[in-house]
Amino acid sequence: MRQLFELCGENRDVRFSPFCWRSRLMLKHKGLDFDCVPITFLEKQPLETAAAKTVPVLNDNGTWVKESFDIACYLDDTYADRPLFGSADARAQARVLNAWVDHTLLGGIFPMIVADIHRHLDAKNAAYFRETREKFLGCTLEEAQASRAGRLGTFRKSIAPLRAGLKVNDYLSGETPAWLDYAVFGCFIWVHLASDLEVLEVDDSLYGWRERMFELFDGYGRSMPRAA
Amino acid sequence: MRQLFELCGENRDVRFSPFCWRSRLMLKHKGLDFDCVPITFLEKQPLETAAAKTVPVLNDNGTWVKESFDIACYLDDTYADRPLFGSADARAQARVLNAWVDHTLLGGIFPMIVADIHRHLDAKNAAYFRETREKFLGCTLEEAQASRAGRLGTFRKSIAPLRAGLKVNDYLSGETPAWLDYAVFGCFIWVHLASDLEVLEVDDSLYGWRERMFELFDGYGRSMPRAA
Repeated sequence: MRQLFELCGENRDVRFSPFCWRSRLMLKHKGLDFDCVPITFLEKQPLETAAAKTVPVLNDNGTWVKESFDIACYLDDTYADRPLFGSADARAQARVLNAWVDHTLLGGIFPMIVADIHRHLDAKNAAYFRETREKFLGCTLEEAQASRAGRLGTFRKSIAPLRAGLKVNDYLSGETPAWLDYAVFGCFIWVHLASDLEVLEVDDSLYGWRERMFELFDGYGRSMPRAA
Repeated sequence: MRQLFELCGENRDVRFSPFCWRSRLMLKHKGLDFDCVPITFLEKQPLETAAAKTVPVLNDNGTWVKESFDIACYLDDTYADRPLFGSADARAQARVLNAWVDHTLLGGIFPMIVADIHRHLDAKNAAYFRETREKFLGCTLEEAQASRAGRLGTFRKSIAPLRAGLKVNDYLSGETPAWLDYAVFGCFIWVHLASDLEVLEVDDSLYGWRERMFELFDGYGRSMPRAA
C-alpha cells in the first residue's frame, strides 16, 4: 500500500499544492503505483501520524515520509531505478536549487494567485487560509492579487536562471526530466490548476518546456481537474 | 603544455577575476599541472587565438577553450578522474546555478568593490575599466561603492539558498567540493583579493564553508597575493 496525502480544495478532486505535485510526479517518474488521499488545510489527522505539519506526506507501506525534498531522497534511496538525482553532487546542488525555487518561484507566484486559491476553499478552510495568509502577506488577499500586473514582469525576470539551462537542454535536468523539472513544474501546475493567470509568455523557452512537462506520463498534468 | 590565461592587476601577481578562479580551482581539483599567464583587460592577443572576448581561456596543449563553464565541461569530458559533475543532471542543474551565481553573487558583489578593483589597475586599464563599468552601472565607481553599506544586508539575504545546502553537507556539492563550490568560492576569493570588504558575518554557515575552501590544496587560496 502506497498513499500520498495531498492538499485539496472544496472540490476534493482539485489538487493544487505545488509541493504535493512534486511528490506526485516523482512517484510517476519512478513508475510506482500510489493512491492519492486528499485532505484540506484543516484535516490534520494523517499529518499527526507522520509528525508533519504540512502535506505532502507519503505512507510507503508503513514508512511515513514528509517534506517533498525528503520524499525525493527517500524514493531514490529506496527505489534505485530511474533516479531523481544522478549523483551525490546532483542531490547536494538540489538542496540549493530547492531553496531558490521555493523563494523565487513559489514566493513570486503566491501573491499573484492567493485570492484565486481562497475562492476554491470551503468556508472553514477559506477563513483559516485568509487569516494565516493575510498575516503572512501583511495585506488582504485581494490587495496582494491586485498587485499582480506589477509583479509579473519582475517574476519573469527572476526566473532567468532556468532559461540558461534550456539554452542547451530540453529539460532542466538534461535530456530527460528529473528532480529539478518536477520541482519547478510543481510551481507552474499550481498556477494552472488554481488560477487563470498566464505567468509565461508564448515565446519564452520555459513555455515550451512547460508544454513538454504537461505531456509527460500520457498527458498526466494536462488531464487534472482545474479549480476555475 | 597547459596554460590558463587570467586577468591581472597592475601588480601582475594579483589575479582577482572570479571567473578565472573557477577555472584555476577546477584544474587543481583535477590534479592537473598548468601555468597561469596574466593578462590585463586591454591585452587581448591570447583571447584572439581562442576567439574569446574575456578570460579565462585555457590552452590545453593546442586545444583552446573559453568561458569558465565550458572549461569545466571540457575538463570533465577530457579528464574523467575526479569529476566536477557527478552525473548528466548535475551538469544540467549547474547551468541553472551558474546563471544564478553570476546574477546574484557576482552581480551583488560587483558594485560593492568596483572602486577597489579600479585602484589596482594601471592608468590605461583603469581608464578603460572606469569608462565601461560606469556605463554599465549608470553611476560613478565611487558612487556605486559608497552604496556598499546599504547593499550588504540585501546581498547576505540573497545568498540564503547556499545556506540551505550547508545545513546538511560540509560543501555545496556534498561531502567533498566540486563544481558548485568552485563557482561560488570564485566570487568570495575575488572580494578577498581585491578588497578589504567582509561580505560574510562570522556566525554565517557560509563563513565556515569559505574557511574550508581557503584550506583546500594546501591553503592555495589563502596563499595568493592580495591587491590591498
